[in-house]
Amino acid sequence: MGSAPVALRWDEPPEGPVIVLLDQRRLPAEEVELVCTDVPALIDAIRTLAVRGAPLLGVAGAYGLALAAVRGFDVEEAAEMLSAARPTAVNLAYGVGRALTAYRASLAGGAGPEGAWRAALAEARALHREDAQASARMAEQGLELLKELLPGGGFRLLTHCNTGALVSGGEGTALAVAGAAHRIGELRRLWVDETRPLLQGARLTAYEAARAGMPYTLLTDNAAGSLFSAGEVDAVVIGADRIAADGSVANKVGSYPLAVLARYHHVPFLVVAPTTTVDLTTADGGAIEVEQRPALEVTEFPGGMPGEVPGRAVAPLGTQAYNPAFDITPPELVTAIVTENGIVSPVTKTGLAELCARSRSGNGMMSI
Amino acid sequence: MGSAPVALRWDEPPEGPVIVLLDQRRLPAEEVELVCTDVPALIDAIRTLAVRGAPLLGVAGAYGLALAAVRGFDVEEAAEMLSAARPTAVNLAYGVGRALTAYRASLAGGAGPEGAWRAALAEARALHREDAQASARMAEQGLELLKELLPGGGFRLLTHCNTGALVSGGEGTALAVAGAAHRIGELRRLWVDETRPLLQGARLTAYEAARAGMPYTLLTDNAAGSLFSAGEVDAVVIGADRIAADGSVANKVGSYPLAVLARYHHVPFLVVAPTTTVDLTTADGGAIEVEQRPALEVTEFPGGMPGEVPGRAVAPLGTQAYNPAFDITPPELVTAIVTENGIVSPVTKTGLAELCARSRSGNGMMSI
Repeated sequence: MGSAPVALRWDEPPEGPVIVLLDQRRLPAEEVELVCTDVPALIDAIRTLAVRGAPLLGVAGAYGLALAAVRGFDVEEAAEMLSAARPTAVNLAYGVGRALTAYRASLAGGAGPEGAWRAALAEARALHREDAQASARMAEQGLELLKELLPGGGFRLLTHCNTGALVSGGEGTALAVAGAAHRIGELRRLWVDETRPLLQGARLTAYEAARAGMPYTLLTDNAAGSLFSAGEVDAVVIGADRIAADGSVANKVGSYPLAVLARYHHVPFLVVAPTTTVDLTTADGGAIEVEQRPALEVTEFPGGMPGEVPGRAVAPLGTQAYNPAFDITPPELVTAIVTENGIVSPVTKTGLAELCARSRSGNGMMSI
Repeated sequence: MGSAPVALRWDEPPEGPVIVLLDQRRLPAEEVELVCTDVPALIDAIRTLAVRGAPLLGVAGAYGLALAAVRGFDVEEAAEMLSAARPTAVNLAYGVGRALTAYRASLAGGAGPEGAWRAALAEARALHREDAQASARMAEQGLELLKELLPGGGFRLLTHCNTGALVSGGEGTALAVAGAAHRIGELRRLWVDETRPLLQGARLTAYEAARAGMPYTLLTDNAAGSLFSAGEVDAVVIGADRIAADGSVANKVGSYPLAVLARYHHVPFLVVAPTTTVDLTTADGGAIEVEQRPALEVTEFPGGMPGEVPGRAVAPLGTQAYNPAFDITPPELVTAIVTENGIVSPVTKTGLAELCARSRSGNGMMSI
């Protein structure tokens, strides 16, 4: 089985520290690294989805704060800009916040600029490691749950968007569960939704599944219904960008229709996400801000990278588009939320609050 | 309001009779006519979706038979090839059959080759006219039903694929209903699913909606769930490629998930189709053959027409894709089937059989 791609790393060449990203906009055609030497470059990479995925955005935010500090930018301003680069993923602000807290504490403790940026960097590295460990534990717990729910084994899992090594310091969230099933020979089929408009499924999940040697099949998001109807889906596994206190799950647009299909067909619908994705300060699904993205993502097919091959219009000039990046799945449609610190099922406000309390008192992975 | 596009016409230039199609593969970027001088060219146009849509395929099949006859091809062989060009739309074989029957009857009645092809052509023209009349009646009946179901008016309709003048000798099926609502000022919003993989919604429905001046908004198929969830959809209106005797509806892939979403949100789900789409010889949904289309439609974004700009891979080389062209919606999820000869609601085998019997004894539009 192939190795997982490295989505993000900190490097310190002679010219000064940088954040090196695997440019996800160019996958799967090209594996190109994008080097960010300052915070605006990183924010641009976040906004244009060169780096993406809720857990990895947290890690990127923390390193970004360290980069601002080491490069002598205004750290407080950088923190604000980074946190606001994308509104829905709570992990981004969380990662920035952790590095900022470490940075401030170091300064307050009398450290100079060097000590302070090193403190921020150490915190980013800690978050990166924690995220990798969380991935491994989510995979383990998700696999145990699948075995319980589907004692026959030979799982046919449907997934949406990309939730693997490209979104995490480790092997990811939902895709890590599929990977764990694959390693023990129990992944019969991974159904990969292409995930319009940005095709993270086709471009990224298929890329990771191919690297890992998983048996996978790509489909348009429209074709998922036919698979459910034919009894070809044993469980849906997806990630999350934010989970509200009531258990409402914000995830890539198209997740909610899958949840409704899963309910209609009595198929388990599993959300796999680190506890950092749970935001107890957001009461419910209605309180989650859903990012609206440009109409152009729908009205044009991209030709290539900006400045290269131009896009091709697929709709008449002047066509308006409704293009939310995420949708909200209410807790009653979610069979279980699988985290690194345990599983919440059924999904209730109380269950989620208890898990977060355990996480806080436990290994230091905080949910808020 | 703009004029409806003419999707297909018979022409008799000095070089001999031809079928002229508006090449739907090139829309909306270019309005180019494709001239078919023989049956293989027409079959290629049908297979590559230059001409498409269940009712129009029937009309195309009938003219195709006349073209074979006037051009001196083997008419019986042409009838077989045309009928099999696409397996799911029952209208295609129906149209071919009608022209063939007229052709054979003319020959049997002692007509020469000229009389026989003229008989086939007259039958094609009759079918073309009937189809236009059926469109108008479906629009009328669909609008009445909407007024009944949604007495508040100001309809926000969600549609999938393309079901307008581009699929019909008239204004189409589901889109004709939206058009009728628009003409009386009651279409508040037409939500247009882009309809992956071939984007008939983005390319064709948006094109027709723009021409007709309808208030429309394009969305990825994934985003429909968010609209339902926000209460922004008053009814779903779609067409059909084949309706089985039990009322199961084969339509563009992605229709079934919409039906499940509509049911979950208590939103009416209306199927608008001529009675020629009803196939009483197909017992139920399980008996409908669903066309599987090439993986390339999913794994590549088209660059342009064949031989022009090459496609661009959006998935790793060697990726398998599951690409059914249609899905099946069971009758219990369909609020009503609207035809030119009346409405079946609730959708039952008996109700459908009665409608077909009425159609047969009535205006000559046969369902089998």
